[in-house]
Amino acid sequence: MKVILDLCVVPLGVGLSVSSYVAACERVIREAGLVSQLHAYGTNIEGEWDEVMAAVKRCHEIVHAMGAPRITTSIRLGTRTDREQTMQDKIDSVERALDRAASGPGA
Amino acid sequence: MKVILDLCVVPLGVGLSVSSYVAACERVIREAGLVSQLHAYGTNIEGEWDEVMAAVKRCHEIVHAMGAPRITTSIRLGTRTDREQTMQDKIDSVERALDRAASGPGA
Amino acid sequence: MKVILDLCVVPLGVGLSVSSYVAACERVIREAGLVSQLHAYGTNIEGEWDEVMAAVKRCHEIVHAMGAPRITTSIRLGTRTDREQTMQDKIDSVERALDRAASGPGA
Amino acid sequence: MKVILDLCVVPLGVGLSVSSYVAACERVIREAGLVSQLHAYGTNIEGEWDEVMAAVKRCHEIVHAMGAPRITTSIRLGTRTDREQTMQDKIDSVERALDRAASGPGA
Repeated sequence: MKVILDLCVVPLGVGLSVSSYVAACERVIREAGLVSQLHAYGTNIEGEWDEVMAAVKRCHEIVHAMGAPRITTSIRLGTRTDREQTMQDKIDSVERALDRAASGPGA
Repeated sequence: MKVILDLCVVPLGVGLSVSSYVAACERVIREAGLVSQLHAYGTNIEGEWDEVMAAVKRCHEIVHAMGAPRITTSIRLGTRTDREQTMQDKIDSVERALDRAASGPGA
Repeated sequence: MKVILDLCVVPLGVGLSVSSYVAACERVIREAGLVSQLHAYGTNIEGEWDEVMAAVKRCHEIVHAMGAPRITTSIRLGTRTDREQTMQDKIDSVERALDRAASGPGA
Repeated sequence: MKVILDLCVVPLGVGLSVSSYVAACERVIREAGLVSQLHAYGTNIEGEWDEVMAAVKRCHEIVHAMGAPRITTSIRLGTRTDREQTMQDKIDSVERALDRAASGPGA
């Protein structure tokens, strides 16, 4: 089962700057060989369910090991059985819908 | 690693009534022997990381098997290494903070 | 437009214990006269969109005023135009689906 | 109060293809003059709290007007009082942390 997952890991008890923890999670995801894309409020990841979830668990383990005693994470995740869809497919289909609307009913 | 997780599974392509799918997820969680509590926008679950995540995966498998071709799920999850904390502990500590505030500085 | 919203406010830079901040948000919601229900990973709130969103904003203002320099919040929110539905209605419909499944096909 | 918000709007009861609804939300956000960035599981938006929240409400109104009888939305949002931070600042600080780690302790 393929999954597209959006991950936002928030370490607590380590002050205000969380970028080093987010960067550590990025490395976990990349070293797992997963396709991913960082954005301003999380990271998109795509891959097989078990591999993606193993990376999420590894992020928690690493962030605790870096000294964060508490972590709160928010995740969105999607699966579908009707067809394969990549992260890029999702963005492309919204971009196409924007183009269609821009060209209007007379186009 | 213990986790407290808040799960909201949304099947797409099955119309407006999603309660039978949510109920199927409830059964998955209960049959896994996990402590859980349903609320109006999801379900709180507590347990060992791997057991809780296996239940989340099983929810996706079951909801697809019930006929939903697409699922989008939102999750919050927390881990901590400083101390053990149950779902009830979390609610109790907020309730105590509410009581302290209600009794005021003169109490 | 009515909304059912699930709110989880996380103050950063204030250490590990966040219950006093969550309790302050609870008071904001109650003082706004909104129907709400605390759970282990957030609070369900129902009401008119503008009133609920004003309470969410007030939570951020109060938590900053209590000394948290940074807040990250996660929200789920639902609106529907086909019929009115309360938080209790949502729970009841899942409970009924669980009962139907338990009584089985022979019932 | 400035906010960085990550928005994921999910229309229910309209089948499996939701890109036209997501595109309509993109137009709402752009027409509001807000800085935004689409990703594979949502859209990052930055701006003044009231303007961003007005756009979120307008998204729900438009998606209902397009024929979706039910919408479930997930949001992450962050505010901070210690300093100004844009979406690009957040990405840059993670990228810098990745570079520091790559160059290693001897750099």
